Amino acid sequence: MTSPERDFVQAHLDDLHADLDAWVRIPSISADPAHGPDVAASAEWLADALRRTGFPTVEIWPTAGAPAVYAEWPSADAGAPVALVYGHHDVQPVDPLELWEHPPFEPTRVEGPDGPELHGRGASDDKGVLVVHLLGLRAHLAATGRDTPAVTVKVLVEGEEESGSPHFEALLRERRDRLDCDVVVVSDTGMAAPDVPSAVTAMRGLADAEITLRGPAVDLHSGSFGGAVPNPLHAMAELIAKLHDDQGRVTLPGFYDAVRPLSDRERELMARVPFDERAWLAGPAASRATSGEAGFSTLERTGARPTAEVNGMWGGYTGPGHKTIIPAEAHAKVTFRLVSDQRPGEIGPMLRAWVEANVPEGIEAEVHAPPGGVAPCASDLDSPLMDALLAAIGQAFDTAPEDVLLTREGGSGPEAAIAGELGAPLLFLGVGLPTDRIHSPNERVLLPMLHRGAEAAAHLWRELAAR
Amino acid sequence: MTSPERDFVQAHLDDLHADLDAWVRIPSISADPAHGPDVAASAEWLADALRRTGFPTVEIWPTAGAPAVYAEWPSADAGAPVALVYGHHDVQPVDPLELWEHPPFEPTRVEGPDGPELHGRGASDDKGVLVVHLLGLRAHLAATGRDTPAVTVKVLVEGEEESGSPHFEALLRERRDRLDCDVVVVSDTGMAAPDVPSAVTAMRGLADAEITLRGPAVDLHSGSFGGAVPNPLHAMAELIAKLHDDQGRVTLPGFYDAVRPLSDRERELMARVPFDERAWLAGPAASRATSGEAGFSTLERTGARPTAEVNGMWGGYTGPGHKTIIPAEAHAKVTFRLVSDQRPGEIGPMLRAWVEANVPEGIEAEVHAPPGGVAPCASDLDSPLMDALLAAIGQAFDTAPEDVLLTREGGSGPEAAIAGELGAPLLFLGVGLPTDRIHSPNERVLLPMLHRGAEAAAHLWRELAAR
Repeated sequence: MTSPERDFVQAHLDDLHADLDAWVRIPSISADPAHGPDVAASAEWLADALRRTGFPTVEIWPTAGAPAVYAEWPSADAGAPVALVYGHHDVQPVDPLELWEHPPFEPTRVEGPDGPELHGRGASDDKGVLVVHLLGLRAHLAATGRDTPAVTVKVLVEGEEESGSPHFEALLRERRDRLDCDVVVVSDTGMAAPDVPSAVTAMRGLADAEITLRGPAVDLHSGSFGGAVPNPLHAMAELIAKLHDDQGRVTLPGFYDAVRPLSDRERELMARVPFDERAWLAGPAASRATSGEAGFSTLERTGARPTAEVNGMWGGYTGPGHKTIIPAEAHAKVTFRLVSDQRPGEIGPMLRAWVEANVPEGIEAEVHAPPGGVAPCASDLDSPLMDALLAAIGQAFDTAPEDVLLTREGGSGPEAAIAGELGAPLLFLGVGLPTDRIHSPNERVLLPMLHRGAEAAAHLWRELAAR
Repeated sequence: MTSPERDFVQAHLDDLHADLDAWVRIPSISADPAHGPDVAASAEWLADALRRTGFPTVEIWPTAGAPAVYAEWPSADAGAPVALVYGHHDVQPVDPLELWEHPPFEPTRVEGPDGPELHGRGASDDKGVLVVHLLGLRAHLAATGRDTPAVTVKVLVEGEEESGSPHFEALLRERRDRLDCDVVVVSDTGMAAPDVPSAVTAMRGLADAEITLRGPAVDLHSGSFGGAVPNPLHAMAELIAKLHDDQGRVTLPGFYDAVRPLSDRERELMARVPFDERAWLAGPAASRATSGEAGFSTLERTGARPTAEVNGMWGGYTGPGHKTIIPAEAHAKVTFRLVSDQRPGEIGPMLRAWVEANVPEGIEAEVHAPPGGVAPCASDLDSPLMDALLAAIGQAFDTAPEDVLLTREGGSGPEAAIAGELGAPLLFLGVGLPTDRIHSPNERVLLPMLHRGAEAAAHLWRELAAR
């Protein structure tokens, strides 16, 4: 379905490609202090690009960590809604470097089975997914013949998302008055497949904790003491084994109390998302089998249900050969993924009480659960804002709005904090793909997805203004 | 009860002290290649000391690792029995060095509550426990007026016991003809308490294994995949939790099949050993509680029952903060202590079969169980040899032989290999104490125990010849 927006985008693809190429060349790895200047350069690059695009106000906002970029382009229309685009300009580390087929910061075009790809760190997450807004906004203006966008467009792009956004909430509070908006447009997610236009509608929250179990005051000789004093590693194993029941449910009392049950409509919507489990296992999951909570599909398990995963466990002797000890301590790192309306701050105390009730005599337990965490978040499926998003995506992907599928993102980000701090609803417009290998070697983006994304972004401002 | 042996020992204590002081000054740490020359110097020192004592044959026996010392002093009596003394001249590493009150290789005399102590690495294990034989043999000759001992005394002191005796069995086989004997006298153990003369009668065996569980081919993002694929750390926790039942028994099928049940007499003998569990928990065990196999005492659990202990367990992210992954692998190191008539070579296959039967779908298991291990060993309580040992200890400690208590050693050493290779029964004459802090900082020995030990060694040769 042709449109002035599509025509403009198609006529200016080189601009999009050149922008992404230039941005990916900047190794803005926020986790590595040595790349601090690169993260700053990435912010400067984006600020320039926003100025080029026409934003009258563009600012670099320093934080206690990496700088964020803010821009604002007011609509001349009285009463026009205000949209805030969120994304990040920092990228993941690149190790193991030897697994990259092309240097991660020398963006390389590769012809793939679904069309041209651009390979490079950040090509998808989040530089590619975010850069569509530059061309998208130009297409919106050109197609509608306007001098200012139909909605006031604000842009907030942080520089520490890949490091857990440690200073982002403080920034939101500090700049609260500048960030007032009617809707937050998150551009840091993906679609189900190249031929399956879809929109994320929810992200899981996160709570993390570290469990330490202490037995003997020192490592003991397992010959002299073995079999007669409690071994913290045995106690940890028993604890972690008890964390799930035989139905794959988390056993912390009260864990599911605040979980909103999936409605029949939500389950039906999720079931429409095409999902080849065999291909998923052989590909991204790289796993021999599925497992998890009984009664739920894999997409429900990863997107719509809360989980507990042990991310690390250690204790005792871990070097070559053997050392015959009963170790003094055992440790486990656990993260919980949360769904609405679970609250991350309640998980730590819940875990602490459960651990204390479940360690054997002679074992002392400590549960370190940092405050904070990430709340789950979701779009309102029945809002006119959602209608605008689905209409925009539908037009860009030549699909009826009701055929744009709704997905859920299993990961967690600062989106809930933005929505909470600003009191604004969330929409997710993101054109990454599950096969983009984000966070891994050979990250890439499918360029036709970016072309569609720029068009969807152009449509979105018009659609939002019309509601 | 005075005796010529005691008179001689008491008149020559300075010799014993000087010998031990000189030997402890040699940092013969076999685990550290940098101390190779020190281990060699320790062997040379011992060879000299044996020559000084009067042994007509003294040899250094090289191995593929550290050298052993061999000595032989034939009895002039036709048909005299042949005894082989076993011990080791290497010592444990000393780290953490900062916890030592005195430099570990500058032997320091300290007045303790039970008498004078000598502090230093190896002061007890095994230089102190072994050095008593030098003065003991001289006392035997002086007290009996003999030019040669009443039994042919052979001595074999290895240099790699603290590193697992990796070349000792090869040495035994290679030198088999020189080592022929009627009894092996092991001097590398201890007594129950300073005022409780006792003899070890058994040592546990050892089998070790490493379990590796593999899930996804790479570490997965726990947001995108959490709750839907098997987590190897969860599987490891479940496996280790299942390794014992709720009675503290090891669950490997067949594990107890070869275990000789404790007879009523053996249990009665063990029960006579004074044991202050509270003091043991507060002191050497440094533990808040006991635990273990239901129906057995702590001394039975540590000495007479087989065990399974996880010595190390690891997988996933173990650094600061958290990393939200489902790790690709989980690992555990397990050692089993064995009692007669369990065979170490049977444990690995038993564990492998059990692990394979108990891992969930999607998890691949590998069990690495090196061949070898250590067989359990025991003295024959009803033999005349045991009567000789108890008589010798009784005389040295002013106790009736029937009041010398019988204990069991939970640890494992090459004793079973010696007995097996040479086809000779084992006696244990050792005067260490549970409070000697062997393998730990501030190792020490109680000097009056060494004085009694020298006297017991002197009596032993006469008693053995008389049976």
